[in-house]
Amino acid sequence: MKLLIALLSIGLAFHDVAAFSTQRSSFRPRSSLSMNVEVNSAAKTIKVGVIGMGRIGLVHLEAITKAPGVVPVIVSNPTISKAEAAALQYNIPKFTNDAMDVINDPEVDAVWICSPSQYHAEQIKAAAAAKKHVFCEKPIATDLAETVEAINACNEAGVKLMIGLQRRFDQNFERVKKAVERKEVGEPIMIKLCSRDPAPPPASYVKGGGGIFADMAVHDLDMSRFLAGADPIDILAIGSTHIDKTIANFEGSEKYDTASCIVRYPGGVQAMIDVCRQSSFGYDQRAEVLGTKGMIQTDNVYPNTAKIFKQDYTGNADMPFDFFLSRYNEAYVTETIKFCESLVNDTPVPCTGTDGLIALIMAIAADKSAAENRWVNFNEIVTEVYCASPTQCELIAQDSMFPDGFKPSSKAEDLLLPDVDQVKAGKGIGAKLKEWFAV
Amino acid sequence: MKLLIALLSIGLAFHDVAAFSTQRSSFRPRSSLSMNVEVNSAAKTIKVGVIGMGRIGLVHLEAITKAPGVVPVIVSNPTISKAEAAALQYNIPKFTNDAMDVINDPEVDAVWICSPSQYHAEQIKAAAAAKKHVFCEKPIATDLAETVEAINACNEAGVKLMIGLQRRFDQNFERVKKAVERKEVGEPIMIKLCSRDPAPPPASYVKGGGGIFADMAVHDLDMSRFLAGADPIDILAIGSTHIDKTIANFEGSEKYDTASCIVRYPGGVQAMIDVCRQSSFGYDQRAEVLGTKGMIQTDNVYPNTAKIFKQDYTGNADMPFDFFLSRYNEAYVTETIKFCESLVNDTPVPCTGTDGLIALIMAIAADKSAAENRWVNFNEIVTEVYCASPTQCELIAQDSMFPDGFKPSSKAEDLLLPDVDQVKAGKGIGAKLKEWFAV
Amino acid sequence: MKLLIALLSIGLAFHDVAAFSTQRSSFRPRSSLSMNVEVNSAAKTIKVGVIGMGRIGLVHLEAITKAPGVVPVIVSNPTISKAEAAALQYNIPKFTNDAMDVINDPEVDAVWICSPSQYHAEQIKAAAAAKKHVFCEKPIATDLAETVEAINACNEAGVKLMIGLQRRFDQNFERVKKAVERKEVGEPIMIKLCSRDPAPPPASYVKGGGGIFADMAVHDLDMSRFLAGADPIDILAIGSTHIDKTIANFEGSEKYDTASCIVRYPGGVQAMIDVCRQSSFGYDQRAEVLGTKGMIQTDNVYPNTAKIFKQDYTGNADMPFDFFLSRYNEAYVTETIKFCESLVNDTPVPCTGTDGLIALIMAIAADKSAAENRWVNFNEIVTEVYCASPTQCELIAQDSMFPDGFKPSSKAEDLLLPDVDQVKAGKGIGAKLKEWFAV
Amino acid sequence: MKLLIALLSIGLAFHDVAAFSTQRSSFRPRSSLSMNVEVNSAAKTIKVGVIGMGRIGLVHLEAITKAPGVVPVIVSNPTISKAEAAALQYNIPKFTNDAMDVINDPEVDAVWICSPSQYHAEQIKAAAAAKKHVFCEKPIATDLAETVEAINACNEAGVKLMIGLQRRFDQNFERVKKAVERKEVGEPIMIKLCSRDPAPPPASYVKGGGGIFADMAVHDLDMSRFLAGADPIDILAIGSTHIDKTIANFEGSEKYDTASCIVRYPGGVQAMIDVCRQSSFGYDQRAEVLGTKGMIQTDNVYPNTAKIFKQDYTGNADMPFDFFLSRYNEAYVTETIKFCESLVNDTPVPCTGTDGLIALIMAIAADKSAAENRWVNFNEIVTEVYCASPTQCELIAQDSMFPDGFKPSSKAEDLLLPDVDQVKAGKGIGAKLKEWFAV
Repeated sequence: MKLLIALLSIGLAFHDVAAFSTQRSSFRPRSSLSMNVEVNSAAKTIKVGVIGMGRIGLVHLEAITKAPGVVPVIVSNPTISKAEAAALQYNIPKFTNDAMDVINDPEVDAVWICSPSQYHAEQIKAAAAAKKHVFCEKPIATDLAETVEAINACNEAGVKLMIGLQRRFDQNFERVKKAVERKEVGEPIMIKLCSRDPAPPPASYVKGGGGIFADMAVHDLDMSRFLAGADPIDILAIGSTHIDKTIANFEGSEKYDTASCIVRYPGGVQAMIDVCRQSSFGYDQRAEVLGTKGMIQTDNVYPNTAKIFKQDYTGNADMPFDFFLSRYNEAYVTETIKFCESLVNDTPVPCTGTDGLIALIMAIAADKSAAENRWVNFNEIVTEVYCASPTQCELIAQDSMFPDGFKPSSKAEDLLLPDVDQVKAGKGIGAKLKEWFAV
Repeated sequence: MKLLIALLSIGLAFHDVAAFSTQRSSFRPRSSLSMNVEVNSAAKTIKVGVIGMGRIGLVHLEAITKAPGVVPVIVSNPTISKAEAAALQYNIPKFTNDAMDVINDPEVDAVWICSPSQYHAEQIKAAAAAKKHVFCEKPIATDLAETVEAINACNEAGVKLMIGLQRRFDQNFERVKKAVERKEVGEPIMIKLCSRDPAPPPASYVKGGGGIFADMAVHDLDMSRFLAGADPIDILAIGSTHIDKTIANFEGSEKYDTASCIVRYPGGVQAMIDVCRQSSFGYDQRAEVLGTKGMIQTDNVYPNTAKIFKQDYTGNADMPFDFFLSRYNEAYVTETIKFCESLVNDTPVPCTGTDGLIALIMAIAADKSAAENRWVNFNEIVTEVYCASPTQCELIAQDSMFPDGFKPSSKAEDLLLPDVDQVKAGKGIGAKLKEWFAV
Repeated sequence: MKLLIALLSIGLAFHDVAAFSTQRSSFRPRSSLSMNVEVNSAAKTIKVGVIGMGRIGLVHLEAITKAPGVVPVIVSNPTISKAEAAALQYNIPKFTNDAMDVINDPEVDAVWICSPSQYHAEQIKAAAAAKKHVFCEKPIATDLAETVEAINACNEAGVKLMIGLQRRFDQNFERVKKAVERKEVGEPIMIKLCSRDPAPPPASYVKGGGGIFADMAVHDLDMSRFLAGADPIDILAIGSTHIDKTIANFEGSEKYDTASCIVRYPGGVQAMIDVCRQSSFGYDQRAEVLGTKGMIQTDNVYPNTAKIFKQDYTGNADMPFDFFLSRYNEAYVTETIKFCESLVNDTPVPCTGTDGLIALIMAIAADKSAAENRWVNFNEIVTEVYCASPTQCELIAQDSMFPDGFKPSSKAEDLLLPDVDQVKAGKGIGAKLKEWFAV
Repeated sequence: MKLLIALLSIGLAFHDVAAFSTQRSSFRPRSSLSMNVEVNSAAKTIKVGVIGMGRIGLVHLEAITKAPGVVPVIVSNPTISKAEAAALQYNIPKFTNDAMDVINDPEVDAVWICSPSQYHAEQIKAAAAAKKHVFCEKPIATDLAETVEAINACNEAGVKLMIGLQRRFDQNFERVKKAVERKEVGEPIMIKLCSRDPAPPPASYVKGGGGIFADMAVHDLDMSRFLAGADPIDILAIGSTHIDKTIANFEGSEKYDTASCIVRYPGGVQAMIDVCRQSSFGYDQRAEVLGTKGMIQTDNVYPNTAKIFKQDYTGNADMPFDFFLSRYNEAYVTETIKFCESLVNDTPVPCTGTDGLIALIMAIAADKSAAENRWVNFNEIVTEVYCASPTQCELIAQDSMFPDGFKPSSKAEDLLLPDVDQVKAGKGIGAKLKEWFAV
C-alpha cells in the first residue's frame, strides 16, 4: 500500500523535473539604447541552495559559480558568520544559519548537502519531502540502514539524488574509464588503484571517523567498481600502522594508517588497492588497468609542466597538488555541471544513490575482512539490512532471527526502490523487492 | 601645450578608476523570508563590453564569465547573428552590430577589443576618447606609427591599456619567469623558445598576414624579453619553406613557414627561438632557460596524465592540446582576472602598451634580418618613427631627411607618453620626449 | 659425527678458495722487442665451466666473457652441436656433451649450472663432491627437500653456492634497495612489485612448469624479501585466467595466467605483488616502495631515450625491452662479476642458498593460499620438511606422524648447515639444528 | 706520378685487410681429456695497440676489451707507469713509453691513437707508413692543412682510417639518425642540438685549446651534418661569457663559455646548436629533429629509472651521467666494434677522414662567424688550403696570391685522395683533384 503511494509520487515528480528545461524566449529592442542595441531577455536558470559552508561546502559553492546556467541563491551554516562570508565572496543574495531555510526556500530547485556526515540522511529526507532534488556529498549516511532509507525517500518522492563521488569526474580517472569502455587495452584483467593523503589527520579526526576503509578507501573501492563496470564479489583487506602509533589502539580499522585490499570481480578480474594516510610528497592518486591488449596508467597532477635541473636534483619544479581541493578542483566543477545537466535535461544522474550504497557496503566488508583476516563476500553485508518498508530499515546481526516471513536480500539493488530515472526508463522494482513487499 | 592637457586628463582619470572599488554595504533581514534568512545587498561589479565575436572574442568573453566580479553587459559583431548567439550562450543582456555602441554604452567601464587587427588602433582611440579602459588583443596596430599613436591616445586620456599577450599568463611560462626572478637557476645564460602550430593556415590567410615574425614569432620574441627581464639589443633571423611550397613566392617573411632567430640581450644573454607552422602532433610550445646554476624547462600540455602501453606503442593516451584556444584556455582567464584586478585596485596593468610596441619592433627587425641576411639592431627600427605630436606619427625611411630640428629616437620608450600607472608612480616622461616636445 | 666431517671439509675448502687470489708477479723486459717494451707476466684468472647451452646458458656465458678476470674454459650441452656453436662464438677451448666433464675438468675452479631445473640438485651435489664452487640458475631444485639437500651438500663440502636471482643485480632494483638501506624514504611501509611477461608461453611449457608462483612470481617474492630486508610472515594469493583459456583446467596454480599476492612482513610492512603472463607491450617490471618519508619508484627500461611525436601519437620511439634477456642483460653481467669477486676475495656470495630456499618456500605458500583461499603462514611450509641428515630430507604432510624424537622446524634457516661464508664469519649452526642432530 | 704509387699501394693494402677474416678451422679431440671433450682450435683475432693511456686512452682500451674478436697486445704512454698500470688492469702482455713501439710492433694489425691532439697527425702518418690501420680520436689534427695531409697519407697507403666521433654511435643519437633515414618524421625541417658540460675546465685548459667551437661544438656541428645527411652551406655563430669571467679576454672563441650557431643545409633545412661549458646538473646532450610529419627528440641518460618523491622534491633518484666517459661508455664500445667489423669484413669504416675534416672546417667557420658577426660560407674556409701534393699542404690567407696555375678548391672532398674503401667501391678522385694534379 505504502509502495503504491511511493510510485504515485514518483509519477508526479516527473512533472516538476520537466519544468527545469530552460525556456529561451525571443528578444526585443530596448528603447533607451542606441537603435542597434538589442536586448536578450531569455535564459532561465536553475536556482540552488547549499547547506554547509565548511571546506567542502565552499568547494561545491565555487564549482556552482563556474557551472553555466545554475545560480546559488541561498547558503546556510550553523555558525552564520561563515555563511555570511561565503555570501559576500560569491555574491549570493541570501544566507541563514538553518539548513531548513535552504530546503524550504521556494526559489530553490535543488539542494546541495555539504554538512557533516551525520546530518546527511536527515537532510536528504527533508529535501525529498520538500520535493527538492538533492546533491549529497559522500557518504549518504554513516550507517547502512539509514543509507537505504535516505535513498528510498528520494526514490519515493521522485526527486533526483546524486552522490558526490567526485573522482569519477576527474579527467584522469575518466580517461581510464573511457579506455575500458572502448576496450582500448582489451578486456580488463587487473585494476590497480593507489590513494595516499599527503599527511595524516589528527588522531582526534581519525577517532570516530569510521576507519580507513569507510573514510578513505571508499573512493578507491567505488573507483574499482566504476572501472570494472561490474559489481564486485568479495574482498580481502589488511591494515597496519606506521605513521602515528598513538592511533594503534583505536577500534576496528580506525587503528590503521595503511591498508591494502584485493577485490574480486566477475570473470576473474582483480582489483588491488592500497591506501596510506601519508605520502609526504603530496596527494598520491594513481590508477592503472592492465587489459588483454595492453595497459593504461594515470599519474599525479602537477600545477605546471616545468622541470628543474640543478646541481643536486633534477625533477619537477613544483610539488604535485597537495590535497583533494586542488587536485580535484576541476572534477568538482565537472560533477556540478553534470548534475545540473541532468536536472535541465531530465536525464539520469551520473552517480546514483545505488553507487553510494554499494561503496559503503564495500567499505564495511573491507573492515570486516581486515578484522577477521579472511575473504568477505559482499552479500554477507547486504543480508544484514532488514527493511520493514523502503524507508524503515534496521541492521540485524547475521545470526539473528529475521521477522517472520522475511528473507534477507543479498543484492544491494534489491534493497532499493527504483529511482526517478529508472522509473522513467520503465524499469520496475526487482524480483526480490516485489516478493518482499508482496505488491 | 598639448602634453599638459594630456597630463591633466590623466589626473582626472584616476578618479574614475577609484570608483571601481567595490563598496561592500551592510546586510539587512528580508521580511518575506524565514526569520533566519538574511539578505546580501552588497557587491558592485565591473561592467564590460566586448567588440568582436569571432573565435578570439568568444575566448575572451568566456574568460570574462569565469573572472569573479566582472560582468559582460554588451557585445558587438558586424554580423549581428554572431553577437546574438554569444549573448544567448553567455546570458548577456545587450548585443549590437556596432562597435561604437559598446564603446559608448554608459554602463560600460572597460572595453575588450577583439576585432580584426586593422580596426584595433581606431577602436583604441575611440575608447580612450570615451574614457573607457581598454583590453586589446595583440597587436595594437599593424603599423609602427599607428601603434605609437594608439598607445599615446590612452596615455593622454589617462585610461588603462592592456595588451593580450596571453602566454605571459600561462602557468608554465609564468613558472619559468618566476624561476628567473627568484634566480632558482642562477643568472640566465640562454633562453630557448619553440613554437609550432599544429598545421599551417591556408595560403590565403598567410598572404597579407604580416609574415611569420609579426604573425607568429611575435609571441616568442615578447616571451624572450619577458623572461630576460631586459630590453633586447639585436637579432639575427632566417626563414625557410617546407610545408606548402605555394607560399614560397610570397613577399617578405610571408614566404616562410619555418624560422629561427637569435636575440642578444645585455650581459651576453642569448635567446634562441624557432617557429614552424606545422608540428603535426599538436601545438608545440616549450621554453627552456639555462642559468649559471641549472636549467628550467617546460613541456607541452596534455588533457590528462594517462599513458597507454600497447603492442606497438607506449606513450600518451591522448594528443597534446591542439591549438591556442585549448592550450591557453586558462591563461586567457588568468589574463582577464589580472586586468580586472588592475581596474578594481587601480594597480599597474601586467602587460602594457610598451610591451605591445616593443614586441612589434622585434618582429619588424626579425623580418629585416631574414631579408638582409644580417644582424639587425632594434634601434634601427625605432629611429624610423617620427611623431609630430604623441598621437601624430609616421614612418620615415632611414635615409630620409627628418623635419627640421627633430632627431630620431632610438629607444622605444622615448616614443611614448607615460601611461596612467607610470604617472601615478611619479614617473615623468623620458629625456628624449622632453627634448622632443620642448616642455 | 657426520656433521663433524662436514665442518672439517669446510675448513679444508677455505684453503682452495684462497688459491683464487691473483698473484701479481713482477714484470721483466722481453728481449725480442724494442728496448722500451716491457712484458706483463702477471694476472692469474678464474677458470670456469658452464653446463647447459640453452637460452639462459648463453646469457651466462656472454656475461662471463664480459666479466674481468674470469675465463670460460669448457661448456657442455647434451646436444653437442649447441656446445660447439657456443665454443666457436665465444672462443672457448673445450666443449662436451657431458655435464660431468665440466664438473670434473681439473682446470675448472667454478661451475655454472644452466641446465633444465630438474637436473640442478644432482649437478650441485656432484660439483660439491668435486669441490667446485657453484653458480646455479634459480631454482636450486623443484622440490623443497631436494633443495635443502643440495644446499647442505655445498655447505658440507665448503664450496660457495650462489643462486641466480638476477633481479637483485639490476641497476633499478638495486637503486630501490639502496634507498631502503639508506632510509632515503624513511622506514618502509608498502612494497609494490609488478611483473608481466610480454606474451604467455605455450600451454605445453606451462603444464608441469610448477605454476605461476614458482615459475614466475618467485622473482617478485624474493625481491619483496630483498627490499624488506626481513623474513616474511604470511601470504595471501589469488589467481585467475584471462589470456589463454585452454590452461584453465590445469592443476594447481598452473591454471592461472594472472596472480596477486599480499605478503606480510614484520612491523606491519606490506608487500603487494601482481604478475601476469601477458602485458602486450614488452617486459613490465616495476618496483615501488612507500616509506614514512616518501616514495621511490622504478620504471621499465627502453633501449634509448628517444620520444617521437606524430599526428596520431606522442610517446616512446621504441618499445621497452621485450624480455628478461635484454632487460636484465646488464644484471647478468653484474651478477657474474659479483660472484667472481666473492671467489677471488673469498667474501660472502651476494645471493645464497638460503635466499633460494626461502624464495621457493614463498612460492609454495602462495600456491597453497590461492588453492585454499586463505592466508598461509610460511612456517606451515617449512614444517613439512624432515631431514634425517643434512643431505637426506623428505617432505611429510603436516598431519603425518614425525619420526620418533624429531620435531619439525618452522624456520627455514634451521634446515641448513652454515655455509662456507657463515662458518668463516664464526656463525655456528642454529639452536634448532643443534638440537636436531644432537651434536 | 706520386698518385699512381698511392693507388698501387692501396691495391696492395686490400690483401692485408682480407687477412683479418677469421679462419674457422675444424675441431679435434684432445687426448688428455674425457672422451667427450672436444677442442676448439679456431678463432683468429685482431691484435691492436693503443697509444696514450690518459683518460680517453683508458676509455678506448676498456672498449677494446669488451669488443669480441679483438685483443689489445701493447699499450704506450710517455709516463710509462701509466702504461704499466693499464697493462696490469687489462691483462695486456706488453707496454712501452714509446708510441713508435706500438706502431712498429709486428703483431699489431691496427693502432688506436689516443695521444694529445698535437701528436695525432704525425702518428697517423707513421702508422700509415707502417701499413697499420688507424683509429684516431678526434681531431685528426689541430690545423686544416695538416689534417688533409694526414688523411691523404692513409689514403695513399691504403690503410683504413676511422675518426672517433663517438656520438654517432650513441644509441640515442643513432635512433634519431635512423628516424631521419626512415623518414619516420617526414623530411627534416629543423635539427636542434644542445651540448653542455657539467662544469667548465680550468682556464689553463681553455687557453690554447682551440676555442669553444673546435674544442666543444665540433661534436654538435658533426652531428648536425650526420643527421642532415648532407653537407652544410653556411653558418652563423655567436658566443658569450658567463661562468668564469677570467677567460673573457682570451683570444678568439677561447673567450666564450657559451655559444649558439645556426647552420644552413640544402633545401632550407636549419640546424640550431647551443653549447655551454656549464650545465650544473650533469652532462646535457640532447637532440631534436622536426620533420614534415612530426618530431623526434632524445633526452639525457640516467644511471637507472628510479624516481624519488619526498617532502620537498619529486624527480630522478640520481643525477644524469655526469660526463662523456659515463654517458658515452656504451658508444665507445659500439664504435670500437664497428671499426673492428670494418677491419674483419673489409667494409667501409663508419666515420671517415672526410668526416673529421669537414667537422674541423665547420668549427673554423663558426669561429670566424662569431668573430666577424656575420654568416660565413664553408667554402671560404676550404679555399684557404693549398696542397702542392696530397700530403704537402699549407694554409693561405684568402687575399694571398695562389701559386701560379692553381685554383683554390671550394669543396672539402676535392682536397682528398679517395680512401681505401672508396677505391674499392670504384670511386675515382673528384674532378677538382684530377685537374689539380693533372693526372
